[in-house]
Amino acid sequence: MKLWQKNTTSLKEVEKFTVGNDREFDLLLAPFDVLGNIAHAKMLATVGLLTNDEADKLVNELKNIYTSIRDSQFTIHDNIEDVHSQIEFLLTEKLGDIGKKIHSARSRNDQVLVDLKLFLRHEVEHLVLSIRSFFELLIQQSEKYKKDLLPGYTHLQLAMPSSFGLWFGAYAESLTDDVNILKGAYDVVNKNPLGSAAGYGSSFPINRTLTTQLLGFDDLHYNVVYAQMSRGKTERIVASALANIADTLARLSMDMCLYLNQNFGFVSFPAELTTGSSIMPHKKNPDVFELIRSHCNQIKALPNEIMMMTTNLTSGYHRDLQLLKEHLFPAFSTLNDCINMAALMLSNIEVKKDILTDEKYKYLFSVEEVNKLVNNGMPFRDAYKKVGLDIEEGKFEYSTTVQHVHEGSIGNLMNDKIAANMQKAVDSFHFENYHAAIKKLID
Amino acid sequence: MKLWQKNTTSLKEVEKFTVGNDREFDLLLAPFDVLGNIAHAKMLATVGLLTNDEADKLVNELKNIYTSIRDSQFTIHDNIEDVHSQIEFLLTEKLGDIGKKIHSARSRNDQVLVDLKLFLRHEVEHLVLSIRSFFELLIQQSEKYKKDLLPGYTHLQLAMPSSFGLWFGAYAESLTDDVNILKGAYDVVNKNPLGSAAGYGSSFPINRTLTTQLLGFDDLHYNVVYAQMSRGKTERIVASALANIADTLARLSMDMCLYLNQNFGFVSFPAELTTGSSIMPHKKNPDVFELIRSHCNQIKALPNEIMMMTTNLTSGYHRDLQLLKEHLFPAFSTLNDCINMAALMLSNIEVKKDILTDEKYKYLFSVEEVNKLVNNGMPFRDAYKKVGLDIEEGKFEYSTTVQHVHEGSIGNLMNDKIAANMQKAVDSFHFENYHAAIKKLID
Amino acid sequence: MKLWQKNTTSLKEVEKFTVGNDREFDLLLAPFDVLGNIAHAKMLATVGLLTNDEADKLVNELKNIYTSIRDSQFTIHDNIEDVHSQIEFLLTEKLGDIGKKIHSARSRNDQVLVDLKLFLRHEVEHLVLSIRSFFELLIQQSEKYKKDLLPGYTHLQLAMPSSFGLWFGAYAESLTDDVNILKGAYDVVNKNPLGSAAGYGSSFPINRTLTTQLLGFDDLHYNVVYAQMSRGKTERIVASALANIADTLARLSMDMCLYLNQNFGFVSFPAELTTGSSIMPHKKNPDVFELIRSHCNQIKALPNEIMMMTTNLTSGYHRDLQLLKEHLFPAFSTLNDCINMAALMLSNIEVKKDILTDEKYKYLFSVEEVNKLVNNGMPFRDAYKKVGLDIEEGKFEYSTTVQHVHEGSIGNLMNDKIAANMQKAVDSFHFENYHAAIKKLID
Amino acid sequence: MKLWQKNTTSLKEVEKFTVGNDREFDLLLAPFDVLGNIAHAKMLATVGLLTNDEADKLVNELKNIYTSIRDSQFTIHDNIEDVHSQIEFLLTEKLGDIGKKIHSARSRNDQVLVDLKLFLRHEVEHLVLSIRSFFELLIQQSEKYKKDLLPGYTHLQLAMPSSFGLWFGAYAESLTDDVNILKGAYDVVNKNPLGSAAGYGSSFPINRTLTTQLLGFDDLHYNVVYAQMSRGKTERIVASALANIADTLARLSMDMCLYLNQNFGFVSFPAELTTGSSIMPHKKNPDVFELIRSHCNQIKALPNEIMMMTTNLTSGYHRDLQLLKEHLFPAFSTLNDCINMAALMLSNIEVKKDILTDEKYKYLFSVEEVNKLVNNGMPFRDAYKKVGLDIEEGKFEYSTTVQHVHEGSIGNLMNDKIAANMQKAVDSFHFENYHAAIKKLID
Repeated sequence: MKLWQKNTTSLKEVEKFTVGNDREFDLLLAPFDVLGNIAHAKMLATVGLLTNDEADKLVNELKNIYTSIRDSQFTIHDNIEDVHSQIEFLLTEKLGDIGKKIHSARSRNDQVLVDLKLFLRHEVEHLVLSIRSFFELLIQQSEKYKKDLLPGYTHLQLAMPSSFGLWFGAYAESLTDDVNILKGAYDVVNKNPLGSAAGYGSSFPINRTLTTQLLGFDDLHYNVVYAQMSRGKTERIVASALANIADTLARLSMDMCLYLNQNFGFVSFPAELTTGSSIMPHKKNPDVFELIRSHCNQIKALPNEIMMMTTNLTSGYHRDLQLLKEHLFPAFSTLNDCINMAALMLSNIEVKKDILTDEKYKYLFSVEEVNKLVNNGMPFRDAYKKVGLDIEEGKFEYSTTVQHVHEGSIGNLMNDKIAANMQKAVDSFHFENYHAAIKKLID
Repeated sequence: MKLWQKNTTSLKEVEKFTVGNDREFDLLLAPFDVLGNIAHAKMLATVGLLTNDEADKLVNELKNIYTSIRDSQFTIHDNIEDVHSQIEFLLTEKLGDIGKKIHSARSRNDQVLVDLKLFLRHEVEHLVLSIRSFFELLIQQSEKYKKDLLPGYTHLQLAMPSSFGLWFGAYAESLTDDVNILKGAYDVVNKNPLGSAAGYGSSFPINRTLTTQLLGFDDLHYNVVYAQMSRGKTERIVASALANIADTLARLSMDMCLYLNQNFGFVSFPAELTTGSSIMPHKKNPDVFELIRSHCNQIKALPNEIMMMTTNLTSGYHRDLQLLKEHLFPAFSTLNDCINMAALMLSNIEVKKDILTDEKYKYLFSVEEVNKLVNNGMPFRDAYKKVGLDIEEGKFEYSTTVQHVHEGSIGNLMNDKIAANMQKAVDSFHFENYHAAIKKLID
Repeated sequence: MKLWQKNTTSLKEVEKFTVGNDREFDLLLAPFDVLGNIAHAKMLATVGLLTNDEADKLVNELKNIYTSIRDSQFTIHDNIEDVHSQIEFLLTEKLGDIGKKIHSARSRNDQVLVDLKLFLRHEVEHLVLSIRSFFELLIQQSEKYKKDLLPGYTHLQLAMPSSFGLWFGAYAESLTDDVNILKGAYDVVNKNPLGSAAGYGSSFPINRTLTTQLLGFDDLHYNVVYAQMSRGKTERIVASALANIADTLARLSMDMCLYLNQNFGFVSFPAELTTGSSIMPHKKNPDVFELIRSHCNQIKALPNEIMMMTTNLTSGYHRDLQLLKEHLFPAFSTLNDCINMAALMLSNIEVKKDILTDEKYKYLFSVEEVNKLVNNGMPFRDAYKKVGLDIEEGKFEYSTTVQHVHEGSIGNLMNDKIAANMQKAVDSFHFENYHAAIKKLID
Repeated sequence: MKLWQKNTTSLKEVEKFTVGNDREFDLLLAPFDVLGNIAHAKMLATVGLLTNDEADKLVNELKNIYTSIRDSQFTIHDNIEDVHSQIEFLLTEKLGDIGKKIHSARSRNDQVLVDLKLFLRHEVEHLVLSIRSFFELLIQQSEKYKKDLLPGYTHLQLAMPSSFGLWFGAYAESLTDDVNILKGAYDVVNKNPLGSAAGYGSSFPINRTLTTQLLGFDDLHYNVVYAQMSRGKTERIVASALANIADTLARLSMDMCLYLNQNFGFVSFPAELTTGSSIMPHKKNPDVFELIRSHCNQIKALPNEIMMMTTNLTSGYHRDLQLLKEHLFPAFSTLNDCINMAALMLSNIEVKKDILTDEKYKYLFSVEEVNKLVNNGMPFRDAYKKVGLDIEEGKFEYSTTVQHVHEGSIGNLMNDKIAANMQKAVDSFHFENYHAAIKKLID
């Protein structure tokens, strides 16, 4: 059954093809669709399109549906097209003509859009909490291993001394920027599109400011044509923000795979966190990091995919947009899994001690020796040349003591500042605002 | 001459290949490199690596170089590798040993990074101002044409009445979100990486907080390993923000190309803004919009390109990063050109009047008729079916009066709210902060 | 149970994460894994690593498994890691020590690679047959509608007369190039990687030429390091070839959406092939074409995604490669569905007659008028100017008769040549070669 | 001056923006435009649109222009729009009315398309020759170093013995597949679009088969709508083929950067082929390989960029296509530079001897030990477990002798077969065919 059907029927093949996998994504949207319905019903009553009594009945029934979703009792019937139709069907089944009134002053485009926003808002929050807890682990490990030096590379060539304190702290700080970028995306997510109807507004005197408040949105997409245009754009902006996080995790994993390589051998992991080979009995492979890297690189390709699917579409809704869910929705759980697995690994990491005492790393200290000469008054360029020639002539001497004191260096990680920035970033979302609104809506 | 050379020489081919086009981008960085040098010299004096007198001499000479850059007198000598070396060379030429001291406690990676940040900060500001003035034109046109209706399409099928007021306003509002996303990128840009040296800090007791203030940065990239990691990441995040703006412009251009098509014929432009054909004497082609679209779609591919070039590189500097400038730097002027051309076109647009009086657009009004029935008490679903059957049976009657009053609809564009949001977005950059710092630095 | 396990166990979380969705893709590979096993067993017998009797027993049992897969009786047990392990497990269960011998001189990397090649070979064949039948429909429709003119656009502006014959034929010819490009990909697919073991060969005196023949491959990837490197590369090359086909379908769909738009109105479809709107009772939307376009644009992003996931991985296997299946495998059925739906639609298309008699299309004929003047001896540039001025002065006169006779033009479509090229392209695959080999292997 | 201008003038800004950088690319197309002109003129004479005398005069003058281009005497005048107009202008200047006749039965779209095809054909040939000579170096080095073992890694973990013979040979074989894929692209390039005029053919009785022969094309794009559609598509297909080559070079460079890293230390290069650091006097950085990798990864993003710029454009020319040249044209010389630099480096490589005698690589030989047990009759799985337990208990013993004899393994590289495949691939282009035609055309 399709709500938009009059007296003709679609070919079965057309139905199958156009619905595709969409019903499974619709189930993810179901609780949010109910919230949108409740807000819409309440608003319709204030503008006289429903009586208060009708609205109350609808809201009560919608709360029942909400509960059934929470209890995994909700399904979309085989002959019903989508989640929106299923809910309208249930309302009409229960409430008769009252149910038929709820679709006044809106369209399915409207509903999908608002559902999408509410869903993304929820997923972003979940992701932020995941990141924060992973961040805390990174900071802990940074502090724990702050005295453990390792080689720093540039051009993948031995460069200067680094430390595990720096290494962990760097990825922690990377996440603070990633969360800030995610906040920018969240601000686009957290705007109310409801009321744009099919993308051109409605002749009913609806109150979009009210639904904005009821659903806990920060603001409206005012212009109804733009509200519709935010479909596809919101997904792309969110995907870009996910890509930043994914890039941080992928790079971290790349480092781990390198450090685990036996020629480096800077870290190791308990055997039960690695995997073996079907042919080489000695292998302990870092599959977890390889798969984090691969999943994350796939997510990094997602903004481009969304861009490709929406490029050169004119303004106004196109059915193309339906398919954007297919790779975006799973990206959230994939990214969460990757964060959790990275946390599992890094909380069990074993860091090799005293790496830099190995003589093969001696040139890491060449800059230290240059700096000593500078501190004794030789101009930098002359000191640089002297040490360079010493190295070429085999006369280079050095000490392995590292005395870095400036902001953000080995001896002064400033993890407290970084943690404060993360806290500020997380606080800036003000998730409590929307929680309060939603609680009020469904209680 | 290369500052890092000792007694061996690179093969000419290697030199040519590794320098590539980089010197032309270096010229763009030159003024910013001088600023970084001044801040670095001042800081070195406060920590005892230069005497105050040495620092003053360096700063004075750097100001001279700054002036020569402004006056287009500055060049990079053929036998000098890059802008950093050229400036150090000039200082040494003028000040002898004092010039050789300025590279203490930093590396070229450091310099490129800080130059890049200062350059991007400047370009972003320029872009924001361009966008704001284009935004103002869009709002003006939205108000001017708010009574001119045009068909709204969904699925590229006639859907409901829209208006030029809505159309212009939609793209204006789109830009407010784009500017907000750009602000997120700006926050990453406007952090000081200076002092990370080769990416692992320095044994000199430098004061990174001071250079942060001197250069007008909002904050530091604290962790030096992360500071280096911000290379490539900053470019990618900026490119993503440019892609959003580009997408808005590309979609606007796509709409224009469609509306200019003779089957639509909703708008036209003076002949001198269109182009002809070498074979068809009747043509007036919308080349400007096609080229805006194409430039913008190219920019939309840029974040992916940067991602591809940086994927799976371990932490620590890699020379690969040098090439990120090649398509990112020109993207700013391309985008500015596109904005200016779009403004030129849209300020000369001729909008067709009374489009919707043509009977072929009558079904645009079907929802209006449904809504009237609803207002008279019929449940929405029943009204919907009735009008649908009327249409199928050729009995559909309608009026072309459109009465939309809710927020963001044809009759209530809320352009003031949208303009207020844009103002807030632009203000949030606080460009005046960095202007004050730079003024102090070079005056 | 994992074949590579000795005495330690992986953490459940690690197992879950590393296996991921891979088991569902493994089921698709199952029949091909059996074929690889049979060829490997037969080969082992010829080089003395199995007795003939052992090989016969293994082959018989493998044929049973093949049958069970065909009959959908085959599953991968919950405690078994993958399809390769499952099959080895079944063999060992049935044949004891003989089963344990089959993994000599190979590795799972080997098996996945050969399975992948056999799977892709099969899918490519299926796709080629789909395309050919869609091609035939396009040629038929091209012939059927060859006299029906429609406007040809450049810059989306009215340009010159075109025809539905040209339009259908253009997409048909596009597919011939697409099939040729697919053939290039097929040549990479149809090379045998088996025998590269973990990617570095084996000390066993295996006979890779023999397995190449047994499995019906055209040639080997000789170098074992390259054989392993073909993983990821093969997928990328195949994805690029799919992208070409997808681009042809997406563009065709874009044209259809435009021509279906009421301002164009060049074609229509029976109501049961279109869909309606939940709010606008008059809508008949071209969702099928929009979804073909969207699916195809998604597939067009696939080569980039694969590239992103494999960039900057060193030579040698990485677990990252496992995830390449996730979007590539479904792309085949998606593309087939798109082709079938496009065929369903286009075989029911209703083409508007006499479009060009509408006076609004008169300027389409301006070049015809220029050409007439040229035929009467006026130089082209002068004729062009004359007609251009006639148009500007409103004096343009024209006839709607179109006389195009050259190769590939309205009056001379050369569909027979195009069809011959398609036949040649399809024949070049020589699928019969591998069919013969496989038939021999399993009979 | 614009050939398509009648009496109105474009705004200067519009002219500047629409021409953009196109004139510099047009210079690259100039010789090919002349070839297309000659073929067109000769053909016009055979169908009576020019007299033989007129055609001869045009051809002679075109040959003069061809010479002036070869001698770098040709420029596009400031007030002339493009190369096509410049050449027509020169002809008209010299030959008066005869010059004005050459544009009969074609359009600039036609000309750009055929120029593009001829240019790409030329560039592809040049690239194939570069690749072949690089391939020969790889094969030479493979033979030279075939006895030098190095560790083979999977998961970046020590796996099994490999050799430099295998390593060089693998990249050589990779190039054979890359050249085959390039041949597929060449087949699309080497089809004649001339005669499609603006994309809808012409009422003149032109002979496209003749221009196909004159220009040495293998075949026609028959359908004129498809001929025009090949614009953008051809570029994308060529870019995909370049991306394959780029991927091979990028991976090779990644390996080199890793092997050059001091923890690996498998290879080294003379000092003059590496670069230093401005801060660390001991550095010898592999910048050449990093930049090859980066350039190549940028090229790998090119097919996606082209796809983005052409997605969802309807059939028929759009001005967007003009900009596809901007990154595609330079990609050829960049790729050639990368190949040449890789050749320079690899012909000077110094390979470390006896790497595997270092005890840290002992587990590479575990599979060899398993295989010995299998050769003595133990089933593979039991042998695998035994060696695995030996390793865990510290009882593992091994020999470093490697005896691999099968096809493509350390002891049997089969470089002759690989070279034969490369020869076959190169021969398949039959460049001599087009050379003969062009020679005839301009002699």
